[in-house]
Amino acid sequence: MRVLILGGDGYLGWPTAMMLAAKGDDVFAVDNYLRRTIARQTSSEALVDNPNLEDRARIFEERTGHHVEVRIGDVTDMRFLERVVRDVQPEAVIHYAEQPSAPYSMRGFDEARLTLQNNLNATFNLIWAVLQHVPECHIVKLGTMGEYGTPDIDIEEGWIEIEHKGRRDRFLFPRQAGSLYHTTKILDTDLLWFYVRTFGLRVTDLMQGPVYGISTAEADLDEALLPNFHYDDIFGTVVNRFLVQAVAGVPLTVYGKGGQTRGYLNLRDTMQCIDLAVRHPPAAGELRIMNQFTETFSVNELARRVQDAGRALGLEVKVQSLPNPRKEPEEHYYNPAHSALLDLGLQPTYMTEAVLCSMLEMVMRYRDRIAVDRILPRVTWRA
Amino acid sequence: MRVLILGGDGYLGWPTAMMLAAKGDDVFAVDNYLRRTIARQTSSEALVDNPNLEDRARIFEERTGHHVEVRIGDVTDMRFLERVVRDVQPEAVIHYAEQPSAPYSMRGFDEARLTLQNNLNATFNLIWAVLQHVPECHIVKLGTMGEYGTPDIDIEEGWIEIEHKGRRDRFLFPRQAGSLYHTTKILDTDLLWFYVRTFGLRVTDLMQGPVYGISTAEADLDEALLPNFHYDDIFGTVVNRFLVQAVAGVPLTVYGKGGQTRGYLNLRDTMQCIDLAVRHPPAAGELRIMNQFTETFSVNELARRVQDAGRALGLEVKVQSLPNPRKEPEEHYYNPAHSALLDLGLQPTYMTEAVLCSMLEMVMRYRDRIAVDRILPRVTWRA
Repeated sequence: MRVLILGGDGYLGWPTAMMLAAKGDDVFAVDNYLRRTIARQTSSEALVDNPNLEDRARIFEERTGHHVEVRIGDVTDMRFLERVVRDVQPEAVIHYAEQPSAPYSMRGFDEARLTLQNNLNATFNLIWAVLQHVPECHIVKLGTMGEYGTPDIDIEEGWIEIEHKGRRDRFLFPRQAGSLYHTTKILDTDLLWFYVRTFGLRVTDLMQGPVYGISTAEADLDEALLPNFHYDDIFGTVVNRFLVQAVAGVPLTVYGKGGQTRGYLNLRDTMQCIDLAVRHPPAAGELRIMNQFTETFSVNELARRVQDAGRALGLEVKVQSLPNPRKEPEEHYYNPAHSALLDLGLQPTYMTEAVLCSMLEMVMRYRDRIAVDRILPRVTWRA
Repeated sequence: MRVLILGGDGYLGWPTAMMLAAKGDDVFAVDNYLRRTIARQTSSEALVDNPNLEDRARIFEERTGHHVEVRIGDVTDMRFLERVVRDVQPEAVIHYAEQPSAPYSMRGFDEARLTLQNNLNATFNLIWAVLQHVPECHIVKLGTMGEYGTPDIDIEEGWIEIEHKGRRDRFLFPRQAGSLYHTTKILDTDLLWFYVRTFGLRVTDLMQGPVYGISTAEADLDEALLPNFHYDDIFGTVVNRFLVQAVAGVPLTVYGKGGQTRGYLNLRDTMQCIDLAVRHPPAAGELRIMNQFTETFSVNELARRVQDAGRALGLEVKVQSLPNPRKEPEEHYYNPAHSALLDLGLQPTYMTEAVLCSMLEMVMRYRDRIAVDRILPRVTWRA
């Protein structure tokens, strides 16, 4: 299959490119290094130095014989994106090309505006490039479980049937997110749904929870093939941050009461989910939405698990509560459905102590590269 | 009260500026003539020549002694908008500054992108200009009933309590619009709601139905003060278009079966609604949503009423069905609530035969200016 990956240099994009190439797909990876640029500007560089995308692809090909074709450019530039789509004629596009940091999007006007512009224009341009050049192509869009927020009712997979005053209809599940970044993903869903039902696009919107881990079948081949692993407050997801704190001897920083509960998944399971989505396209005119996570944990529970795993490796791991820099409920109901990907065949990799220990051991190899001053929150949710 | 009107040259913006100035408010009207530019580019000029905004304001002041302060500029330019907001220090901002045509937004990529960019950036910049310079200021935002689409359940005023699997919560009423233009208003609502609940903005979002008419207390003083009256397929709302067709002897063009039902209101009632909203601000941190229309009609019913009024004036008015250029249900359930503005004191001006006849008589004065070739649909809902 001819697969185009937008954001192919990212934490998920690069392992996806390798995974699909290893399965024999014709893979084209596009990136403009926006995340690397922001990481440098905010002193949030990843734990391990990652070669640039062209070098990664070259090293991967040397190691495995599989080719990933790289194009460097900005998908918010429609002339660039159209040229790529016309040349590649993809059967599937995996769209990761968004500014992915919630704290960055809350830092101030310029960062909020960049997030809004980049994310909306990337999605909008992709919609039109597909409509005009490859209308049968399957768009696989990365959304986020954060779109739903933490409502006081069960979260369904994208849709809900509402009964109201004796009548019923089916709607997008209500969305109400906790950051501007997450809100841009709601806008993406609104836009995609409009063009799906009006022009018959074929779209999968994956509502993904926070991802953790660094190991995939291909990434494990060579240090130069590792995904970028962020542990800072800007790009680091909570589990990855806790792992680094445990290794660095910095108390795990729980924001507020720590009852914040989310659905998590291992990077290896993201790979499975993307593969399953790509191999099972929805019908034309269908917006298929799947909730992409395997387990729910509160922040306190995550801290306890990392603490236990650290102790098993002889690390002294403390936990400390910080005033919450975000605006969010710290104790809430949370019961999201997540059966669609299991039904397609997802085999979950659960967060066992063995899994946590192997991640800790990986981080320990880079212990001297940890910059402790970028772990504590540097952005608060204030105007 | 110090009131800033964004889009102060528009069909609603200019009469609003006069109305508030006549009530003694300090009125500042901003516009970049985007609608006039698009009207020229699409051969969709208004029926009556309208002096530019500065001339209108001068003529209005000569006739009434009331001053409207004009600033020409683009609110998607944050430096311009910040300068205006800082100088004016408004207590209320009325935000009309959006590309308002559904057909234009469906014409192609460039028009869709302009609509998305203009509308989102105008709203986004306004949010930030208010947060940073006048955080207590009341934003009155023009939304549209079109955000809700035509669901198979009763439409509430902005919000709905959902009971699901034995639990309940309150959410934004589901939104699902019929054009990209209407979809940008959904995105506006998503953005405003995020910043309202996160940073305590004070916002009224008015879900307005299609407006008709040309007469207001101030517009009636002088032909040079008339609002821009569009009757073309791009900017003309259906009632205004039917009135012009009746006068021109062109059959009233019903799209498809004509069962499409919407909530309508007279321009004079829009003036009342805006005035009521401005005088009764919501609390900080509240997104107040009101449905702004006075009566619902199907397109067939509108055609029949215009036909009857035309006949009363001796016009021979025919009705003709055209293949629908839009994608929309042509027969559907429609029962939207609209009590919030009545509760604030709205006195509706219903669409009586006398009201229709007086509009027809106004149009008849400009009969020789009607360009028949811009009435039929020139844009279809195709990719």
